[in-house]
Amino acid sequence: MLGLMQQHNLLISSLIEFAEKHHGDVEIVSRRVEGDIHRTTWSGIAQRARQVANGLDAWSLPAGARVATLAWNGYRHLELYFGVSGSERVLHTINPRLHPDQIVWIANHAEDQVLCFDLTFLPIVQQLHARCTTVKHWVALCDADRLPADSGIPNLVSYESWVSAHRQQYTWPDFDENTASSLCYTSGTTGNPKGALYSHRSTIIHAYAAALPDVMCLSARDSTLPVVPMFHVNAWGIPYSAAMVGSKLVFPGPALDGKSVYELIESEKVTYAAGVPTVWQMLLGHMKPAGLRFSTLKRTVIGGSACPPAMINTFRDDYGVEVLHAWGMTELSPLGTLCTLKNKHLSLPPEEQMKIRMKQGRAIFGMDMKIVDEVNHEQPHDGKTYGDLLVKGPWVVREYFKGEGGDPLVEGWFPTGDVATIDEDGFMQITDRSKDVVKSGGEWISSIDIENIAMAHPAVAMAACIGVAHPKWDERPIVVVALKPQAHVSREELLAFYEGKIAKWQIPDDVVFVESIPLGATGKMLKTRLREQLQGYRLPGL
Amino acid sequence: MLGLMQQHNLLISSLIEFAEKHHGDVEIVSRRVEGDIHRTTWSGIAQRARQVANGLDAWSLPAGARVATLAWNGYRHLELYFGVSGSERVLHTINPRLHPDQIVWIANHAEDQVLCFDLTFLPIVQQLHARCTTVKHWVALCDADRLPADSGIPNLVSYESWVSAHRQQYTWPDFDENTASSLCYTSGTTGNPKGALYSHRSTIIHAYAAALPDVMCLSARDSTLPVVPMFHVNAWGIPYSAAMVGSKLVFPGPALDGKSVYELIESEKVTYAAGVPTVWQMLLGHMKPAGLRFSTLKRTVIGGSACPPAMINTFRDDYGVEVLHAWGMTELSPLGTLCTLKNKHLSLPPEEQMKIRMKQGRAIFGMDMKIVDEVNHEQPHDGKTYGDLLVKGPWVVREYFKGEGGDPLVEGWFPTGDVATIDEDGFMQITDRSKDVVKSGGEWISSIDIENIAMAHPAVAMAACIGVAHPKWDERPIVVVALKPQAHVSREELLAFYEGKIAKWQIPDDVVFVESIPLGATGKMLKTRLREQLQGYRLPGL
Repeated sequence: MLGLMQQHNLLISSLIEFAEKHHGDVEIVSRRVEGDIHRTTWSGIAQRARQVANGLDAWSLPAGARVATLAWNGYRHLELYFGVSGSERVLHTINPRLHPDQIVWIANHAEDQVLCFDLTFLPIVQQLHARCTTVKHWVALCDADRLPADSGIPNLVSYESWVSAHRQQYTWPDFDENTASSLCYTSGTTGNPKGALYSHRSTIIHAYAAALPDVMCLSARDSTLPVVPMFHVNAWGIPYSAAMVGSKLVFPGPALDGKSVYELIESEKVTYAAGVPTVWQMLLGHMKPAGLRFSTLKRTVIGGSACPPAMINTFRDDYGVEVLHAWGMTELSPLGTLCTLKNKHLSLPPEEQMKIRMKQGRAIFGMDMKIVDEVNHEQPHDGKTYGDLLVKGPWVVREYFKGEGGDPLVEGWFPTGDVATIDEDGFMQITDRSKDVVKSGGEWISSIDIENIAMAHPAVAMAACIGVAHPKWDERPIVVVALKPQAHVSREELLAFYEGKIAKWQIPDDVVFVESIPLGATGKMLKTRLREQLQGYRLPGL
Repeated sequence: MLGLMQQHNLLISSLIEFAEKHHGDVEIVSRRVEGDIHRTTWSGIAQRARQVANGLDAWSLPAGARVATLAWNGYRHLELYFGVSGSERVLHTINPRLHPDQIVWIANHAEDQVLCFDLTFLPIVQQLHARCTTVKHWVALCDADRLPADSGIPNLVSYESWVSAHRQQYTWPDFDENTASSLCYTSGTTGNPKGALYSHRSTIIHAYAAALPDVMCLSARDSTLPVVPMFHVNAWGIPYSAAMVGSKLVFPGPALDGKSVYELIESEKVTYAAGVPTVWQMLLGHMKPAGLRFSTLKRTVIGGSACPPAMINTFRDDYGVEVLHAWGMTELSPLGTLCTLKNKHLSLPPEEQMKIRMKQGRAIFGMDMKIVDEVNHEQPHDGKTYGDLLVKGPWVVREYFKGEGGDPLVEGWFPTGDVATIDEDGFMQITDRSKDVVKSGGEWISSIDIENIAMAHPAVAMAACIGVAHPKWDERPIVVVALKPQAHVSREELLAFYEGKIAKWQIPDDVVFVESIPLGATGKMLKTRLREQLQGYRLPGL
């Protein structure tokens, strides 16, 4: 027997309609590529999102067509989020930090018909446009008078002249909530990039979950700064959750340096910020020498890669900002876990609380997770037993765009490629990437543990642990280290630094000093490339 | 083009599975009918919910069959919530405060096959069971040794012996998320009661929305006391939202007096409580003379009927408890609006904030609302213009069970029967019930305004405003008043009390003193009965 409740499709257009109707005067503030600060409101965004939809109609772009962006966090990008998806097209956010050849591959694979780009990326677009064979419309996200005259890009239009040519009236279409809404390719450290094709339904359910008190805790009292990029997994869904609750949004544009981010936090009274560790490192690096404080910032969610424990401490102890550790993936829309304490933890001493805060956190309702051994047997939640982490839920991918990579699921579960423990209270901790774990004499050594210890040494800027083949132990760990400017530590000093912090047999066999560690487009260490660089390397004594 | 995300039905069983897996040790504390305090956990509830499901299977109860409850808030009721709906049956919560004839009517209309009742209601069940022709199984929610031997109810079993006879292992079935999950009849001040038939989908989406920071703000750090009954619109969905976030639950059972509720709040470290004004009045009435304080209670949501402004003030000013005004209906699952301030209101002076707090609040995302005039034209959101309030959304009824009352919708919108204003910021304020508004000389007078002013007089316990026919003005308002014990106020003094508070022409024409004002099963004033009582009444001077 079916219930008798109203049937409404969960659609992204309803978010922008709601934000306009109930939070129309709430500000959307953006630092632009031009360097100035731009101010609009949810009403302004809604109105221009409708103009975008009319503009796409005028190009006779069919439902399901992909509209790509190469853009920073800003109001125009936000208008495209709602205008493209709301009108039943698919927003394809491309990471501009990828190699141009990868961008071409992705744009062709997605069969993008429109590509909108910030002027920052004009040189990239000039370099690759001729190879993007499906793109019919190139849009520069700029005022009409800033459109480059001699770009060499055929039919290039400025976003402002395109949008302003269209009516502000538009009725959002109603359609199946399982319709595709946006597309994001995984950074793909191995193999071809693979596209996660989100739906309106998955996006709305994720937006509800992401705004919950134990997740990002978003409300109409927040001023939210997504430092995490809109070109990467929809800025963790913040644009959607913010519209859902009527939060103010503050966009940093291209200026992710410590000074710019700090100034924006202060001038726009930011209460909540979300980003990856590298950006917060720059922010703290700017604040500390100048003795600066936060006036309004209360909490920050840090994710994207494992957050160094020292940073959680600094934010909390020195700046009074609550740091929530998060974990997610492109394939998870992206939120999987948030590390918020439970009631029973509130009475624990600070150091015990800190042990929990270091973990990636608890599953959000909707996200089911388990850890399994090599033969897919579920492992206990004891906080000690390692296993491959598998997830499922309404905002997890079922397969990749165009079936790329085949069926990724294992009996309905998505294998994350992470190795993790889950404790009795459901707190998950990533101990490694499945492919990075060092298997020494039948035991697993977490490369992340090795790296965190090295990073805690004052002379170390960045550290990467990799496994090197060993005739007796199969693999042994070594640590590759880039030092801070003017800092010094010897091989022996660093190895001694490990003593007492982990078991003897887990201590790396060697330290290799390098100028810098190669990073991927999303700021993650590229261990594959590091392994190539170390091809001739031999363990000491072998 | 469809998205490629995993398809999972939004099912109530996933809530209890999640709560067991991630919050298994979180306590569920109940004051029982027996008077003692019972303690279990989300794990315990989950295990017994599975036993309930096995028990229903053993009776060969088909999918969609209605299982009724006549029960207070407590752990057994919670087990039925999940066991019945999770196994694809429909939980039908009956309000035990209804007249026995109405209960019989409702049980027969719903075709209930099982009826579970607290021993408090044994006399009622004894009186009506023979007339409930579809009920095959009667279950007393008690230990085996407390089962009345000579109840006269055929095949009466105790819940404990029934549940304990069944296995703890059970695999929740997977089915269409639009399947009916629970049934609640409107209190029906006019006509036959009408059943709202909720679905799994509507319940889960409502649970997400209800837990948001700007709504009930539920988290794993809360100890939640739903005073609002589980027999009435699922205790505002708290059982579901609490499972979703892992909140502790504290159930008051039948003891809703001020002393019992206060003791439970203190002993169980309650942080959040939800209820109707009458219960809070008793609580404050107990605390004030004894000089008691709250140690942990931080916020309370008050709804069910308009909350007297004085109570919001008392909670905030005298006890430091944030009071959120809420508005909902059986047909809305029930939450429609919550009154949480926006960022821009935080800097307003307290008296300006209070003006906003008096309103019923803003729509939650998912709930769309508008006000219309007599010819269904949308009215402006200026905070002044009155209109009939219409809503729509995924947790609003489409029609009533068995089509009772015909098609309730007006062009897809559900007419709430309330008259309201909506201001520029989306804050809705109920000014009256459509049928209670007093229409005097073409102008509308809000009966609620008239009542609130009378209630602010120290001598008045309760006040009801009704319209009386008038040859010149069509209708004129009078106020019917029940005084507090030993309190006195004259007709002239009370009418003088209105001066300066509302326009002259809105001041009631007369005061009628009564011993008490008739209340319905959910604590609302029964104006229809009041009108019957005043049949011979004539306005002064006519």
